Amino acid sequence: MQKIALAIHGGAGTILKSSMTSEMEESYRNGLQSALETGWKILKTGGNALDAVEAAVVFLENMPLFNAGRGAVFTHDGKHELDACIMDGKTHNSGAVAAVQNIKNPIKLARLVMERTEHFLLAGDGACEFAEQMKAERAPDEYFFTDSRYQQLLQARSENVVQLDHADEVTNAEIKNQSKTQKSKSKIGTVGAVACDFLGNLAAATSTGGMTNKKFGRIGDTPIVGAGTYADNRTCAVSCTGHGEFFMQTVAGYDVACRIKYKNLSLSDSANEVIENLREIGGEGGLIAVDAKGNVALPFNSEGMYRAFITSDGEPIVEIYKK
Amino acid sequence: MQKIALAIHGGAGTILKSSMTSEMEESYRNGLQSALETGWKILKTGGNALDAVEAAVVFLENMPLFNAGRGAVFTHDGKHELDACIMDGKTHNSGAVAAVQNIKNPIKLARLVMERTEHFLLAGDGACEFAEQMKAERAPDEYFFTDSRYQQLLQARSENVVQLDHADEVTNAEIKNQSKTQKSKSKIGTVGAVACDFLGNLAAATSTGGMTNKKFGRIGDTPIVGAGTYADNRTCAVSCTGHGEFFMQTVAGYDVACRIKYKNLSLSDSANEVIENLREIGGEGGLIAVDAKGNVALPFNSEGMYRAFITSDGEPIVEIYKK
Repeated sequence: MQKIALAIHGGAGTILKSSMTSEMEESYRNGLQSALETGWKILKTGGNALDAVEAAVVFLENMPLFNAGRGAVFTHDGKHELDACIMDGKTHNSGAVAAVQNIKNPIKLARLVMERTEHFLLAGDGACEFAEQMKAERAPDEYFFTDSRYQQLLQARSENVVQLDHADEVTNAEIKNQSKTQKSKSKIGTVGAVACDFLGNLAAATSTGGMTNKKFGRIGDTPIVGAGTYADNRTCAVSCTGHGEFFMQTVAGYDVACRIKYKNLSLSDSANEVIENLREIGGEGGLIAVDAKGNVALPFNSEGMYRAFITSDGEPIVEIYKK
Repeated sequence: MQKIALAIHGGAGTILKSSMTSEMEESYRNGLQSALETGWKILKTGGNALDAVEAAVVFLENMPLFNAGRGAVFTHDGKHELDACIMDGKTHNSGAVAAVQNIKNPIKLARLVMERTEHFLLAGDGACEFAEQMKAERAPDEYFFTDSRYQQLLQARSENVVQLDHADEVTNAEIKNQSKTQKSKSKIGTVGAVACDFLGNLAAATSTGGMTNKKFGRIGDTPIVGAGTYADNRTCAVSCTGHGEFFMQTVAGYDVACRIKYKNLSLSDSANEVIENLREIGGEGGLIAVDAKGNVALPFNSEGMYRAFITSDGEPIVEIYKK
């Protein structure tokens, strides 16, 4: 009998038990648990993987705790630019939006891009115009304002040694010496979900507010098919979280699929190799993955990753730290 | 001794000898030949692959004949939105811009993103702001205006059955029935270059004006690492051209690399498989690829592809049609 499975994440990074209050920890655990239940209810009652991952991500987007939707971080200009992507493992169709503002649930807009346009990725004002025509639910600036995120922006701004928006004030050498692999003090985070339904169909969804203090319309890995998000029934569905540029460079999402289809690795071995490869080049983060047999994998190389999963085999598991 | 190689393309599509005047054909051939020579001079005199692909693409961007830079097609709103990406096979660093306007050479701006920021992909207004700070050369709207491209826009606009910018005027069913795999009458095209230098370093560069009549800030495969552009000394450098959504869906650029590293295919076999895979799902286009031994491959499944290459072994080859 076909097994079903659902895994979700709420971001990876320097998440230490020592710097977490028990109240905070409980909020995160409850949030993950509820998001998981939301998606699981759909799968369990015969719903499809696409609806399950969308519902789980919508739930996470609506929580101020996670860096997506409502809890999105601030850009350098004090705005919220949201990215999201959804992919259908059966048809390989996908939809994504990048740098959209005032959209309550970017993942719903991504699904509209998938189902209602001939394109995969819409960005900026054009994507917002599309949202308007689709009557996507909007939310005012205040909806996205959380004080902790604003404090992060102020801190990131003040700690930024090389202010690229004042690039003419620093020497070329200084700019060039700033490696892309430099540990950013900016807060990063993402939410995502992957699922396998009773028909063996897979889907992946990812949504993010990007990096605190990001500039110049930066687009990360989240809305990029093959980087932050990927789904193919024949291999796996993947959603990534971490320092986006590394996931783009290693084409991490599709790499998990390739190691399965070309190297005949198991889901778990493939996902582990991709995260190990990431670590070797200095990339921090993690991913969640599921295959059509209902296996799940949730590897990460950071201190922690907000994560939860459930399969036909057992009870929901919610975890935060390294084991 | 290390062999060097350079391949370029000026777009793939329905290019038929029967619909081409001999003057037009000569213009295309001369343009390709000169762009090839520009890059080759750099490689031949010990220059690096990155400089060679940039120079070749700059040359093609400056020609009104090709859909990139000066010859870019019109968006639905009558504007020119340009995408470009460059990737260094040695460091796996890359830079890309999407939907930038009034930038004379988007590929140069992409290189600045690679070398002067910690990000990979900048889009829209943010990318233009970055261009301003980098003092990137700008060009007025008139520079990009070519009458043939404008006629294409008028034709594409009039032939568009489902005007998504009037989506509220059509039924959902009508929209949903419009498949992404539907043959678009919009003109597509791209320019690109891949190179291998005397140190065995690889690089890839791609630049495009996107699709005629494109809407809503659509971003295609060109600026996406792993889709339209990819480079890794250990495998290959790739630049793609064709209907972008298919190259995004199949993560075509990185797929060429994966079939080499995980399936142990030759460059040529791998590139052919990727283009065959594309054909199977209805995707039209082609790619150029080079490996660190100086081999080149230029497969395509469309009627034609503007292309040229040269290696240590021989004379420059310039071709347009299927053989």
